[in-house]
Amino acid sequence: MRKIKIPDTMISVVLNSYSGVDALCIEQRPVPTPRRNEVLVKVAFAPINPSDLATLTGYYGFKDPTPIVPGGEGSGEVVSAGPGIMASYFLGKRVACTGWGTGGGVWSEYIVKSVKGGVLTLDKSLGLEQGAMSFINPLTASAFIDISKKGGHQAIILTAAASSLGHKVNRLGRNEGIQIVNVVRRDAQVDLLKAQGADIVLNSNEVGFEQQLHDVCHQTNTHIAFDAVAGPLTNQLLKAMPPNSKVTVFSALSKQAVQASPDLLIFENKRIDNFWLGPWMSQQNFVKIMLLWKRVQKQMPNLLKSKIRKIYPIQEVKEAIRDYTSQMTGGKILLRMS
Amino acid sequence: MRKIKIPDTMISVVLNSYSGVDALCIEQRPVPTPRRNEVLVKVAFAPINPSDLATLTGYYGFKDPTPIVPGGEGSGEVVSAGPGIMASYFLGKRVACTGWGTGGGVWSEYIVKSVKGGVLTLDKSLGLEQGAMSFINPLTASAFIDISKKGGHQAIILTAAASSLGHKVNRLGRNEGIQIVNVVRRDAQVDLLKAQGADIVLNSNEVGFEQQLHDVCHQTNTHIAFDAVAGPLTNQLLKAMPPNSKVTVFSALSKQAVQASPDLLIFENKRIDNFWLGPWMSQQNFVKIMLLWKRVQKQMPNLLKSKIRKIYPIQEVKEAIRDYTSQMTGGKILLRMS
Repeated sequence: MRKIKIPDTMISVVLNSYSGVDALCIEQRPVPTPRRNEVLVKVAFAPINPSDLATLTGYYGFKDPTPIVPGGEGSGEVVSAGPGIMASYFLGKRVACTGWGTGGGVWSEYIVKSVKGGVLTLDKSLGLEQGAMSFINPLTASAFIDISKKGGHQAIILTAAASSLGHKVNRLGRNEGIQIVNVVRRDAQVDLLKAQGADIVLNSNEVGFEQQLHDVCHQTNTHIAFDAVAGPLTNQLLKAMPPNSKVTVFSALSKQAVQASPDLLIFENKRIDNFWLGPWMSQQNFVKIMLLWKRVQKQMPNLLKSKIRKIYPIQEVKEAIRDYTSQMTGGKILLRMS
Repeated sequence: MRKIKIPDTMISVVLNSYSGVDALCIEQRPVPTPRRNEVLVKVAFAPINPSDLATLTGYYGFKDPTPIVPGGEGSGEVVSAGPGIMASYFLGKRVACTGWGTGGGVWSEYIVKSVKGGVLTLDKSLGLEQGAMSFINPLTASAFIDISKKGGHQAIILTAAASSLGHKVNRLGRNEGIQIVNVVRRDAQVDLLKAQGADIVLNSNEVGFEQQLHDVCHQTNTHIAFDAVAGPLTNQLLKAMPPNSKVTVFSALSKQAVQASPDLLIFENKRIDNFWLGPWMSQQNFVKIMLLWKRVQKQMPNLLKSKIRKIYPIQEVKEAIRDYTSQMTGGKILLRMS
């Protein structure tokens, strides 16, 4: 194995308060040392995801006292290992890593991660750019399909469906024979999804949307919606589906409270639950997660591939975020860490 | 068995449009004839429940084309039986009857009911006044306790807790060792519930309510709320309880949409589901319902007794409803049918 020289210091993106992109700065920090069952990853690339934007403004589920290093996922190479067999196993391997738990976020030249869930080996066929995005969206899309199949659903609603996640859910859905009822907010997104082979795409800002959605849900027997928007749209989804349906809220792009008519809940047995990737994964058994990861890695070059719109060096993180915020569909923005 | 002379005509309360109490009138109608597996009940008393008020304005889950006869439950005597062993079994018996299914609502001198769920025998110890109220509230209160015990809950929130249902839930809760966190909207209701032995009663209109509710829910490990109010209160309940909690909406006295912060749903694994007595009962097996009914009948003279504020003759149904609407706590209003 080639020996990589590890410097004493590195640069990290640091968030100094939960007040958004302006609270970010680049800091020189000491490179951390992995302890037992930990590895040091030289980070290659990290995407900007909607959950990262939520983190910056304090709207994400984890909210450690600032300063924090943001970044929910990335790719890199394990360049040093603490004591322990599993840590040694990872030494020299190309990995995907998460911003959860030990070591914090990945927007840094180096990060320490626990071998228990913090790093997963990348498939040899996969480049570090795509590899950096192989965790959050691919596993979320796979989880939606998994939940839908387990629940016996042959059709599902997906909101904010023109997102990078939306494309993946659509491709997996076609592959698995699950009809996706796509809901978007602009006509351009309707065209985009249809051009990529989606059958059903509705614009929630169009006149007649509620009736169209109702008709489609009843024709396709759709009893579950995965909702990334929240606000009044959640109630429109509840209303459109037949009795005994549920909306699974997983994001709140509208930044509004979920709304639901009590009569839909009580008299039509409709429910609202939730999805968050971390807890979902921790509810699955280890073997299932490993098999799922293996499948996701095999699907990354095709069904789960992400379009990359632009790559920014870590130093330009603010520009990168502003670019992403201005256009969240049409391809991912990556940060190059070194 | 004494032979009861059945007249050709009767009077019924009839709702001519879903526009509230003014759309009610008293009509002369032919007395119906029971068919196979049906019985004719000479109705004695019927309470006015919140679900009846919802029916009058079209907000209830059943909404047959008008004219309809309202009335969700009542008591009476079976005076005639159609063919079938079960129907014969009920002949001459004092029964509680529901306004669901065959025969419609009970605000009528006579009604036909199916023996399959439309009538249940009253315990000998029970008068027809209390018997008229032995279905909806007693079974709902029992169901809440049953759901709570099954879910391993040792404490539950109940909103609109000073209602007739609320008193029953409190008494059953004390009997079963389940702590009730009562939420009401007026100080007088706090005093009323405390005078009846409730430990925890919070006024949602008081300054500091959210913090108090939070503290109480964490001290008592409360993870479920039964919510009759909806609107912004639902979100306050979600917010106050620890992670992995749920609000079960069963009415909407606020007449507002349920509100829920997406971050509570997603990051604290909170959920919103529903309760409606009819579907809940149909999910239980027959033996369980019979045992439950037997227990409820034994508890009716004490734990499940309802205070009666006033009894009106059927002809004064409008006054009765106006009286009930003006003061929904402090005892039930009954209609005397003949």
